[in-house]
Amino acid sequence: MSKFRNLISIDDLSRKDIEHILSRADEFLDVARGERKLRILEGRILANLFFEPSTRTRMSFESAMKRLGGDVINLGSLEASSFAKGESLADALRVVEQYADCIVLRHYREGSARFASEICSIPVINAGDGAGQHPTQTLLDLYTIKKEARLDNLKIALVGDLKYSRTVHSLIKALALFNARIYLVSPDSLKLPEEILEMDIDFVESDLKTAIEEVDVVYVTRIQKERFPDEEEYRKVAGSYRITAEMLESSDAIIMHPLPRVDEIAYDVDGLKNAVYFRQAFYGVPVRMAILAEVLL
Amino acid sequence: MSKFRNLISIDDLSRKDIEHILSRADEFLDVARGERKLRILEGRILANLFFEPSTRTRMSFESAMKRLGGDVINLGSLEASSFAKGESLADALRVVEQYADCIVLRHYREGSARFASEICSIPVINAGDGAGQHPTQTLLDLYTIKKEARLDNLKIALVGDLKYSRTVHSLIKALALFNARIYLVSPDSLKLPEEILEMDIDFVESDLKTAIEEVDVVYVTRIQKERFPDEEEYRKVAGSYRITAEMLESSDAIIMHPLPRVDEIAYDVDGLKNAVYFRQAFYGVPVRMAILAEVLL
Amino acid sequence: MSKFRNLISIDDLSRKDIEHILSRADEFLDVARGERKLRILEGRILANLFFEPSTRTRMSFESAMKRLGGDVINLGSLEASSFAKGESLADALRVVEQYADCIVLRHYREGSARFASEICSIPVINAGDGAGQHPTQTLLDLYTIKKEARLDNLKIALVGDLKYSRTVHSLIKALALFNARIYLVSPDSLKLPEEILEMDIDFVESDLKTAIEEVDVVYVTRIQKERFPDEEEYRKVAGSYRITAEMLESSDAIIMHPLPRVDEIAYDVDGLKNAVYFRQAFYGVPVRMAILAEVLL
Repeated sequence: MSKFRNLISIDDLSRKDIEHILSRADEFLDVARGERKLRILEGRILANLFFEPSTRTRMSFESAMKRLGGDVINLGSLEASSFAKGESLADALRVVEQYADCIVLRHYREGSARFASEICSIPVINAGDGAGQHPTQTLLDLYTIKKEARLDNLKIALVGDLKYSRTVHSLIKALALFNARIYLVSPDSLKLPEEILEMDIDFVESDLKTAIEEVDVVYVTRIQKERFPDEEEYRKVAGSYRITAEMLESSDAIIMHPLPRVDEIAYDVDGLKNAVYFRQAFYGVPVRMAILAEVLL
Repeated sequence: MSKFRNLISIDDLSRKDIEHILSRADEFLDVARGERKLRILEGRILANLFFEPSTRTRMSFESAMKRLGGDVINLGSLEASSFAKGESLADALRVVEQYADCIVLRHYREGSARFASEICSIPVINAGDGAGQHPTQTLLDLYTIKKEARLDNLKIALVGDLKYSRTVHSLIKALALFNARIYLVSPDSLKLPEEILEMDIDFVESDLKTAIEEVDVVYVTRIQKERFPDEEEYRKVAGSYRITAEMLESSDAIIMHPLPRVDEIAYDVDGLKNAVYFRQAFYGVPVRMAILAEVLL
Repeated sequence: MSKFRNLISIDDLSRKDIEHILSRADEFLDVARGERKLRILEGRILANLFFEPSTRTRMSFESAMKRLGGDVINLGSLEASSFAKGESLADALRVVEQYADCIVLRHYREGSARFASEICSIPVINAGDGAGQHPTQTLLDLYTIKKEARLDNLKIALVGDLKYSRTVHSLIKALALFNARIYLVSPDSLKLPEEILEMDIDFVESDLKTAIEEVDVVYVTRIQKERFPDEEEYRKVAGSYRITAEMLESSDAIIMHPLPRVDEIAYDVDGLKNAVYFRQAFYGVPVRMAILAEVLL
């Protein structure tokens, strides 16, 4: 049993911890689909404190909690802004913890979730702290890979913005625990930071075409316009890291994306069996159920 | 059994479908009033996606779902705006359907609900798509008429803006299935559109006084200031389509209104037995319960 | 049994009524803490109508309702503003009461809650009406005093803004029922209004140091910058009514605050056994449970 109390960073979890969560998620799959009724969190309250909007993460936590019979209180969006202004985050947390059994926190300041877990007497789950961590995203990514491909000896291509993407950095650290070979596919200006490249991981620099031929999973991230000096430069670069149905004709690789996408993945991919990005969003529900059950029961 | 999966337009429903829903609503009346406990939707999740505010419709769906033991996840208002900006409606829907058993959609674009029902694998209920349809409003209007007057061989006056009111157009199409005689009471500039007038329905042009004397139901809609060249013109016209207590002294006609009212109905009407518009809002709850039970069970 | 239907003003309650609520709160303490499951409000709906943000009050009502198995529908913040604009408060209330069993109302207009209780056919709980009343705050203050000190023959210091603070005025009126000796500690410009000073209560003008030595409870309120001609004057005054750990070294007095604090209480107080202000926020939950049970069962 690898019981934990808070979930702040993927770095806090061992391979065993991760496997434990992913296998608990399996137990909740049919509940997440609405096929089985389970009320193990009845009477329990989750406080969603989102100081930045994050529709997918918030809604999927709500769905997870409510499908298990629990309930949710939300910080309203206008409230979040006024709360943030007039009162210290510490005070806000110390009040909200009086009303709930667990806090899911999204905050623009890096380190805020760790801070929250230190001052709160109830469990804190990090739902994104600025440039920091978003561990439940990483866990649902891993769960998707486990369900739709395989975790061990995986070959995975990371495509797009490898420099700034928090999601990518966390995923790499987690994959390192599972002996993955990681194909790096990115424009020169958005390469993986040196300190991650230096980790003891089997990295391969690659182009998109080769990667698609060789890997089990293609993980696509958005290339943001703001990273480029002008729109034309952006368009040129972004266009050459775009996945289309044609490119997947003879590939069995699954295509993942943390969403929202802009046009890194053409719409004609949606209908292919390769496309798992919406199912990936779904997997967030059983994974978050597993986490909630872990910290609340 | 006239089972349906989505509810997009009143035009999709036969007379038998409508009668089926209205008689299911009867079974939920006491639950809607909080007099009987029923948990038939326990564990089920409704996703409320309102890209425009619509307090009455949203709250009444929430009440219907929660009174039946189900739960609701809401798209926040700030989220709705950012969602709408950065991401296609299709992607937003395909993500949200992963978290719920049913979607209630309010969107400013006509046709959006039909579109949603085509791409989603869970039922979609249209809660208003721009100038298009708002079928649950029509169903609750019909239910109110059934409970407070009668549906067959009804005489009903439609008062106010008959040109632009979506509510009025849908109600007419539904009433056509029940052999209603429809009194049209509107200023010249806000008359019923030609294509509806040409339907095979018993229409009578009338003035407000005559209509009140002869009909069972007076359905009042708001005349909007924006439809008139100047404020004075508006005031003059709007004033002559205003219902007051005095006008109802010798009438048993019930007064309906989709709400919110501005001053089409004087406050002194509120206390009369004729006034059913707040009860009409209540009837939205059992009707929406019937629809939710229909698509979810 | 001192059953009541609405809760509008603390002035409506007798000492017996208050004692009754506080002792019911005791029965819910473990449920509020999440230690015992109780579903006595299952199927019941609370409508939260907040026309002004009030995170603490709203969330604590939600927690109270949901811990007891009931559910909540919230007026969204954008909706609140549009509701308030286009429609009379009366109409808004008459619609919302169709969807719920009980209304919690926060409105900027004094008297709005009383008005609501007169036109609604379901119970109304006042969650603050402008400069008027906020009775559930007063009740949770009294409950805190009862649990952490004692209600009878209490010595309490009221510190800070005694002139404008609604919280302080209501608390004084309630304490008058319990024979309290009240120490008044405030700058000259923020003294207690004459009409309250004239009540038959044992008032003592005091300074902060003496008060802390002699009382059982120190109730601190915020001194608002806007009350002063310039920032420097504010800083000087506010600074001399600030509680620090050092000042409490030889005191057993408990420190209360309705929150949010700015810096009336130094952070070094938080760790002392004297500090009860976060627990005070918690006590809002069992007290609101007691009130909800009272009006709904």
